[in-house]
Amino acid sequence: MSLLVVGSIALDSVETPFGLREEVLGGSATYFSIAAAFFAPVGLVAAVGEDFPDAHVRFLASRGVDVGGLARRAGQTFRWRGRYGEDLDTAHTLDTRLGVFANFRPELPAELREAEHVFLGNIDPEIQAQVLDQVRAPGLVACDTMNYWIEHKRAALARVLRRVDLLFVNEAEARQLAGERNVIAAARRILTLGPGAVIVKRGEHGAVLFSGQGCFSVPAFPVEALADPTGAGDSFAGGLMGYLASCRSRAMPALRRGVVFGSVLASFAVEQFSVERLASLTRAEVDARYAALRALTQFDDLHEGEAA
Amino acid sequence: MSLLVVGSIALDSVETPFGLREEVLGGSATYFSIAAAFFAPVGLVAAVGEDFPDAHVRFLASRGVDVGGLARRAGQTFRWRGRYGEDLDTAHTLDTRLGVFANFRPELPAELREAEHVFLGNIDPEIQAQVLDQVRAPGLVACDTMNYWIEHKRAALARVLRRVDLLFVNEAEARQLAGERNVIAAARRILTLGPGAVIVKRGEHGAVLFSGQGCFSVPAFPVEALADPTGAGDSFAGGLMGYLASCRSRAMPALRRGVVFGSVLASFAVEQFSVERLASLTRAEVDARYAALRALTQFDDLHEGEAA
Repeated sequence: MSLLVVGSIALDSVETPFGLREEVLGGSATYFSIAAAFFAPVGLVAAVGEDFPDAHVRFLASRGVDVGGLARRAGQTFRWRGRYGEDLDTAHTLDTRLGVFANFRPELPAELREAEHVFLGNIDPEIQAQVLDQVRAPGLVACDTMNYWIEHKRAALARVLRRVDLLFVNEAEARQLAGERNVIAAARRILTLGPGAVIVKRGEHGAVLFSGQGCFSVPAFPVEALADPTGAGDSFAGGLMGYLASCRSRAMPALRRGVVFGSVLASFAVEQFSVERLASLTRAEVDARYAALRALTQFDDLHEGEAA
Repeated sequence: MSLLVVGSIALDSVETPFGLREEVLGGSATYFSIAAAFFAPVGLVAAVGEDFPDAHVRFLASRGVDVGGLARRAGQTFRWRGRYGEDLDTAHTLDTRLGVFANFRPELPAELREAEHVFLGNIDPEIQAQVLDQVRAPGLVACDTMNYWIEHKRAALARVLRRVDLLFVNEAEARQLAGERNVIAAARRILTLGPGAVIVKRGEHGAVLFSGQGCFSVPAFPVEALADPTGAGDSFAGGLMGYLASCRSRAMPALRRGVVFGSVLASFAVEQFSVERLASLTRAEVDARYAALRALTQFDDLHEGEAA
């Protein structure tokens, strides 16, 4: 197994200006693993309850996701209910029911302990650490987090960050984590906390990669028919980590391509509710949108400009 | 004269989290012409009052700006007083005194009537039309506007737009002008109103060019030491139009390079108050930041990716 993800699998109830869906497949590990599986073998570690539909498990397996680390426990599956306003910028959480996720103590199957690439989805940093402890020789470790852990579990998060190569945050999280108002200053400060690179996700404004080797900025692919932003960040991380696992490089050119693939996967994820769009997506569509993002962003250097 | 700008020249009083300046040089035509003059000869059409310091006129001339169209009238110079909050996103106007600008009826000197490129700064669309009427054979016409004219002078603005090749707006203005919530849909609608291309300025998130020939997106250059956002949009327009005037092309490759030069000039303008940074700026610094923006945004195509 080249890529391991630990995170949530959820039944989401989501309302956006474009519709309402009840109890649909969601969760960070779900979006991540479906996105990553376009590029590399991926195994997920998560827990679901007795109420979790078998069809969802079969669906994940059909997308090439190794579900050997998916534990079914007594109790209810994690549920999240949220609403997006007109600007689709921010999810307003209406209800969270942790269910079996409340006492989730992941136990990795032998094969997943050999993973070379690890994505620690947005869960309690103490659980992130437990997972990492079980991976024999992690080569590239990436991590997501959120305001709640930054505020309430800062020490545990700091310990995880020292073991992380790549951190995913949004702008507000970057500021909060670094205690810096300016996002560039915040990113530079985060690079002193452990991660060799930090990716600041900016939603409809794209993403920026900061690392000691330089910066890279990519816009979001312009999506006119946006339906539901849920899972965009995890699809982004899945596209990026899946690509890196496939090319076995972490040099800047590979990181840049990975960030673009992340942006591509996120742009598809938001076109429909839940994982509907990812479910019908083909690798050819992924590659075509990669090319479209390149056409959207590339320009001549000055020398070419003068010659033209 | 290859490039003509009509717009405001102002004495600005500006407060940002980084300081306060009283009665400093500002105005759309000021920022535009200084930025454009890095690339091409530029002449400005504007009015100032008896109180306008001669030193400012000499400064503009020293930057290569033709001030033959600068009328000095009885009365006070246009004054604007504004404040930016912590996020530096929005200017809160505290006071506006139109002064001689209230009855400004521009009369173009003979040389400026021969301009090939015209920038109609953000003023009353009826005055924009008067200026355009006086240009003998305009080749490329660009236009800026704002919420006030969209709301109160829509018919006059619509008449101007039919004569415009390139429109500059921010996201809110694009939505308001088009009556479309989605910015991409708004841009497409605007392209039916006259302009062959529309540039949506997104502040710290960069800019997007929409045209029948395709789209182009560029991030803002990451500025850590941002002091004062005033004039960013006009510096952007100046860099873009100056570059287009210098290369005499309006094909997509030239437009892309122009948008990048616009982003470069805007990123410098905001580093200090008023026109302080533009005043010390050199063409070598401009070209270096163009290269830096290229390094920030470029990535391999898929074929190169597979080979690497």
